[in-house]
Amino acid sequence: MNLPTKTPLSEALRLLIGQGVDAIDTPALVLDLDAMKRNLARMAEFAKKHDIRWRPHAKMHKSSALAKLQMQAGAVGVCVQKTAEAEAMVAGGVTNVYISNEVIAPHKLARVAALSHMLAAERGQLAIAVDSAEGVARLAQAMNERRAATGIPAVIDVFVELDVGQGRCGVAPGQAAVALAHEVRKHPALRFAGLQAYQGKAQHLRSPQERRDAIASVVQDAETTRKLIEREGIAVDLVTGAGTGSFVLEAASGVFGELQAGSFLFMDGDYAKNERDPAQPQFEHALFVKTQVMSAAGGHVVCDAGHKCHAIDSGMPTVYSFGSEPELEYFNGGDEHGILRRARPGAELPALGRTLWLIPGHCDPTVNLHDTMIGVTGGLKAGKVERIIRVDARGALT
Amino acid sequence: MNLPTKTPLSEALRLLIGQGVDAIDTPALVLDLDAMKRNLARMAEFAKKHDIRWRPHAKMHKSSALAKLQMQAGAVGVCVQKTAEAEAMVAGGVTNVYISNEVIAPHKLARVAALSHMLAAERGQLAIAVDSAEGVARLAQAMNERRAATGIPAVIDVFVELDVGQGRCGVAPGQAAVALAHEVRKHPALRFAGLQAYQGKAQHLRSPQERRDAIASVVQDAETTRKLIEREGIAVDLVTGAGTGSFVLEAASGVFGELQAGSFLFMDGDYAKNERDPAQPQFEHALFVKTQVMSAAGGHVVCDAGHKCHAIDSGMPTVYSFGSEPELEYFNGGDEHGILRRARPGAELPALGRTLWLIPGHCDPTVNLHDTMIGVTGGLKAGKVERIIRVDARGALT
Repeated sequence: MNLPTKTPLSEALRLLIGQGVDAIDTPALVLDLDAMKRNLARMAEFAKKHDIRWRPHAKMHKSSALAKLQMQAGAVGVCVQKTAEAEAMVAGGVTNVYISNEVIAPHKLARVAALSHMLAAERGQLAIAVDSAEGVARLAQAMNERRAATGIPAVIDVFVELDVGQGRCGVAPGQAAVALAHEVRKHPALRFAGLQAYQGKAQHLRSPQERRDAIASVVQDAETTRKLIEREGIAVDLVTGAGTGSFVLEAASGVFGELQAGSFLFMDGDYAKNERDPAQPQFEHALFVKTQVMSAAGGHVVCDAGHKCHAIDSGMPTVYSFGSEPELEYFNGGDEHGILRRARPGAELPALGRTLWLIPGHCDPTVNLHDTMIGVTGGLKAGKVERIIRVDARGALT
Repeated sequence: MNLPTKTPLSEALRLLIGQGVDAIDTPALVLDLDAMKRNLARMAEFAKKHDIRWRPHAKMHKSSALAKLQMQAGAVGVCVQKTAEAEAMVAGGVTNVYISNEVIAPHKLARVAALSHMLAAERGQLAIAVDSAEGVARLAQAMNERRAATGIPAVIDVFVELDVGQGRCGVAPGQAAVALAHEVRKHPALRFAGLQAYQGKAQHLRSPQERRDAIASVVQDAETTRKLIEREGIAVDLVTGAGTGSFVLEAASGVFGELQAGSFLFMDGDYAKNERDPAQPQFEHALFVKTQVMSAAGGHVVCDAGHKCHAIDSGMPTVYSFGSEPELEYFNGGDEHGILRRARPGAELPALGRTLWLIPGHCDPTVNLHDTMIGVTGGLKAGKVERIIRVDARGALT
């Protein structure tokens, strides 16, 4: 099979390594590596303390280099949403990948099967989610065809996805999941690996109590379904799920065995608006858009980063303030521009040419707009460019 | 100078050429080439009939191949918003490029100057917008330095941008623009080429009368400023501006000499919500996202295209209906999913695995999410893939 290949970094990017942050052209996606490493250490410590597996979601950073960094810190592998993301991770040397999403197209399932066989040959492991008997049958067919073609007896891990309140994919908790577990177990190339119970909407409920209520219902659904399946003599090895907004609750549930939280590594502007659960580690913003004032002819100033540079599905970016108070507020200026106004009376409007740092509202689709992240150490004021991190799975949609 | 280079198309994409639309994997950005060519012919005819130049905005398609197609149809060149977009266009063989936006960073102005000199050597032309004396001085310095280094006496076209109601970049109409025209004329490497008067907000006013009122004010501002500048003995060769929502008005004004409209080529879902001015050609949707139902376990169906696949700044995509009535409505399902519900009672929900076509709300940032557009002829039902069109300037942010 053909895995995606990497193109060389541009000369301009290679020359940037070792230079000060001032040398970074705008707009650019910049990663504060110090903050990111502290976030990673906090998560690793949390998982160790609670004796729980973590397989962070790589749909967020889409970088095989960061996936491997997470695995060095103790993660068992990564989750992805797309077959093409899985291919990019495997091409980058990641050996444990869970496609935590449904795949239904036969030609895409052929790619999933090929990846599973490739990883089996390297003692790695691929996993996937299902929520229909047809999906299970098609997956089994693709695995059997690949097995026949290669002679490798690969087995793919299959999680039955429950809809635990998000109203998107997944079967209803209860008997529908039991039936699907039986379907999975009909096929020797498929291993029933457990349940996926992810409630995306609960992540962004602002108060800890609202999140506790939402996740209590998730835990109950998962627990009830697990018991129903086990009553049929089928082991449920793992319940997997949880995002950055709620993982402390899933970790404490006694039902979940694996956390998928990914955003903690960069920490979205939006997640920071959640009132923090005291049990949750205090994560820092690590992902920024460097931007520059390119017009100040009106009573406001205009910067060179618009929504081709950062995603706005979770609101506008926040302007980072080096002081204790916010100075500027970002308003939508279209695809290529941002309008900056005073966030408080008396705040100083930045002059033409001044550079600023934005905190994206939502990291995942922001990262997906960029081919690279510029990794800096030593802070945003006086730091240096340490490395360029490729977004291997940028645009990996299929 | 180093222009961006192209990586080869993947084997999967190359093999797609000549196959039926059914072979297109999902999600994918698909261009109906027949509809696009009809849109192009309608615009060319309009410009010819009204005897007006058109320099369509390539920030929309970001493709040098489509830019050249537009020039073959009569466009004088293309507009872009970013220096990196201009570089991608020139690398693809486009010789007349207008950066209709301000550039203020000295290292970026050095790239602008290099591009201007490269084009001058090839009898091409680069143009740029300004809205500050500092911007003019920095541009002149960059041009002078490049002139000294190369010995080529290149001259860059400079448009003074007016803020005609958008509240973004541009000086106020009137004396501020006169002063800036004088600044431009101080420098031999800069040619004062005229005024830019673009009102982005007017494009999406829904009724023709609202748009007429908004553009009447734009025309008056541009006309007043032009007369003030001409009174000082300075020729204003060109007033440039206009988008797809309003260009018939600018074309009829007698003041505008050039239209920048770009979206007409693909026709956004959002522009289609405008009540059409009778003078405007009837453009067709030419850009689609092909998607597939990948889950139907709930009472709704879920497709595999979320907002990593199409921009949602102008609302959710519309589900294309082959019949006379809308069948399905698209709801936000996050980064990788869309939720589809019945648009009318009795409409049939599509089965697992069925493919569908979405019309993006806003073409520009949608195209910027994709490396390629798959060009088809013969329609979405029974057509064939004719060519793969690269999005050369995807992610060209600087």
